[in-house]
Amino acid sequence: MSFKAEPLRLSTTQADFEPRFQQRLHWAADTDAAIEQRVADILADVQRRGDAAVLEYTQRFDGLSAANMAALEIKADELKLAFDGLPAAQREALQAAAERVRRYHEAQKKASGESWSYRDADGTLLGQKVTPLDRVGIYVPGGKAAYPSSVLMNAIPAHVAGVGEIIMVVPTPRGEKNQLVLAAAFVAGAHRVFTVGGAQAVAALAYGTATIPKVDKITGPGNAYVASAKRRVFGVVGIDMIAGPSEILVLADGSTPADWVAMDLFSQAEHDELAQSILLCPDAAYIDAVQREIDRLLNEMPRAEIIAKSLTGRGALIQTRDMAEACAISNRIAPEHLEVSSRDPHRWEPLLKHAGAIFLGAYTSESLGDYCAGPNHVLPTSGTARFSSPLGVYDFQKRSSLIEVSEAGAQGLGKIAAVLAYGEGLQAHARAAEMRLR
Amino acid sequence: MSFKAEPLRLSTTQADFEPRFQQRLHWAADTDAAIEQRVADILADVQRRGDAAVLEYTQRFDGLSAANMAALEIKADELKLAFDGLPAAQREALQAAAERVRRYHEAQKKASGESWSYRDADGTLLGQKVTPLDRVGIYVPGGKAAYPSSVLMNAIPAHVAGVGEIIMVVPTPRGEKNQLVLAAAFVAGAHRVFTVGGAQAVAALAYGTATIPKVDKITGPGNAYVASAKRRVFGVVGIDMIAGPSEILVLADGSTPADWVAMDLFSQAEHDELAQSILLCPDAAYIDAVQREIDRLLNEMPRAEIIAKSLTGRGALIQTRDMAEACAISNRIAPEHLEVSSRDPHRWEPLLKHAGAIFLGAYTSESLGDYCAGPNHVLPTSGTARFSSPLGVYDFQKRSSLIEVSEAGAQGLGKIAAVLAYGEGLQAHARAAEMRLR
Repeated sequence: MSFKAEPLRLSTTQADFEPRFQQRLHWAADTDAAIEQRVADILADVQRRGDAAVLEYTQRFDGLSAANMAALEIKADELKLAFDGLPAAQREALQAAAERVRRYHEAQKKASGESWSYRDADGTLLGQKVTPLDRVGIYVPGGKAAYPSSVLMNAIPAHVAGVGEIIMVVPTPRGEKNQLVLAAAFVAGAHRVFTVGGAQAVAALAYGTATIPKVDKITGPGNAYVASAKRRVFGVVGIDMIAGPSEILVLADGSTPADWVAMDLFSQAEHDELAQSILLCPDAAYIDAVQREIDRLLNEMPRAEIIAKSLTGRGALIQTRDMAEACAISNRIAPEHLEVSSRDPHRWEPLLKHAGAIFLGAYTSESLGDYCAGPNHVLPTSGTARFSSPLGVYDFQKRSSLIEVSEAGAQGLGKIAAVLAYGEGLQAHARAAEMRLR
Repeated sequence: MSFKAEPLRLSTTQADFEPRFQQRLHWAADTDAAIEQRVADILADVQRRGDAAVLEYTQRFDGLSAANMAALEIKADELKLAFDGLPAAQREALQAAAERVRRYHEAQKKASGESWSYRDADGTLLGQKVTPLDRVGIYVPGGKAAYPSSVLMNAIPAHVAGVGEIIMVVPTPRGEKNQLVLAAAFVAGAHRVFTVGGAQAVAALAYGTATIPKVDKITGPGNAYVASAKRRVFGVVGIDMIAGPSEILVLADGSTPADWVAMDLFSQAEHDELAQSILLCPDAAYIDAVQREIDRLLNEMPRAEIIAKSLTGRGALIQTRDMAEACAISNRIAPEHLEVSSRDPHRWEPLLKHAGAIFLGAYTSESLGDYCAGPNHVLPTSGTARFSSPLGVYDFQKRSSLIEVSEAGAQGLGKIAAVLAYGEGLQAHARAAEMRLR
């Protein structure tokens, strides 16, 4: 069977560019009222009945029966066996990737995750203490889209942050365990692993059951049920982001081999029919060359059908007036992954304001970042890079302000606070400040 | 009229301490289905009809009519007039507070909000670029609880982060403007101010209207409608936290004058009948002394009725076995405000893991921190300090990963990525990496 990928071809000089561009970008998360209600019911049931409810849903949705929740825990020795049983190349690749991811996140912690303080001349101390979360839950999807790399990308920053206990949940439909996922849990150092998934797993982590400990935060991707459940338990626990379909934007000046760029567009498209791959380039002939490589390479790909659907349905090859315009459009999109496939990427990087991750230069394929360059592959999607950040050590830490006002400091501050507190009609606030005046 | 405040008296040595302690702590945000539905309708209507809908709701809910949205904007000169019209003491207090808050948040930005990067031996660059949000919305409550200090605490960190445009919304029921709030907007440098509030203001900021620009993130406290609206637009824009009632926990070793501690408990209780003030102390005689000061001081307070209701309904004076046990209980509570009212606060501070802000020593009344010590007064409530942080510069910034793989680096990384990508069944990822191999 032969597939054809026909991404939308646009030029910013077209009169109808704006509406066509907007339409192609548009994606809205469906909120399905039926799913919402079922998730609400599952959460309430797990909160009420604990393990018994989780067992029941696991049987119903994953076709997996167990006598009790303890039987659904994968113990450390089984994780190690999974790792030991892998081919050497996979073992080494997992370990090398983990090592680089760890090193990057250690640098991140050092750069932005340490406590700090200073003292005023009067001896008053001000600062912020940074501490790890006590216990976190990591949701790892099972079945078709089981990604061991996601285990590393969630668990390692938690470890580096100093989280006391990392509880991983992964559904194993009909009991089928993915050995690479288990091996990744071993390498990343998950403390406990339970083979449960869906809204019931999120509920168990958020509320705790007799067997599954209550966590402080839940991270990791999942299907619509998992996303809905995470949104609902937000506040009871922390959550990371709610991810939409994955996206890549390639800014190309025409200096990178066209087949490299075509394959980079594929690497996003192969995730999912809703994934979005966009090329922005001022050079029409280069865009033609990329389209030719798409045509040439597509049917070599095992996932050609998904790639074709994704590129045809949501992809775009856009000719811009110049690279500066391409950068401006990129800022409007705020893509999850942004490749600057240019001879001179550092010329353009300062113009790029919003993106989850920026891949500079022809050798930096997104896939290197997905697995092993070091930075996290959990990134903000659907334009949320305008206001949110890659998953990082900071997601597994929290901060407490530190204030120690000296007796001398209390004299000046007390007067200011009293004036403002009386102005707000909060007299006890004012009196508390005034009592510290000499 | 005379009031009486009777906080619950407990001791950790009582047999029934645990259930009584749990019951006193318990607080759950009501989710009112009627409010939820009305908010959903308002959001949809503002999204559809823009300014016209906002004007209509402002008329209906705030009793404020205007010919058009432009008439609801307060221009810079009116903000300055409000500031100029204040008594000198208020002007100076606002400016002094703003200056200290700015200085603290500048230190915060320097400590944890700067871009960083490093290079591997093979020339590969890894790092993170930190950039400000383009535009944020600050919700400031109006009416009874109009707090100019909250304007400073939201707008200044946004300014320090480098946010391009700060849009403030504040309801002015029946057109009554709070001059201190306007003056605070002037001092803090809000770029535009609109006198709208409620779910309609949140909707306008999240979706944009012809007059009110769409923002990237909305911060600031509000009533149940505002909280529900923020929760619903989360994902379209970023939001800060959803705050519960305010709380103070005082750990006392008995060395602070008992009337100071009593007034500190009042200063939380006076906010709201649902506010929670708790004292933990190993010294029964000292707890008695604090209760006597509560009795003595209560009826001097203009807000005695609220204080009495809050302390009686939700307050507690708890005798612990020792200070270490008090610290352990504090960690279970994860309070918003934590006073360590001790002769030797640095002995206990390292034991305190979860709190929004930690106030060290007898001179550090919470009220100094609320107004002018420097750290932010927007803090995690209801135990969410287990996983979240004070509002800060970091809330108005986002991060982008930076990756530049050298040709040499691509050789090693490409092999690792290809092994893992094939393991996950993502062949285009693998091929993209392999194409960069020599």
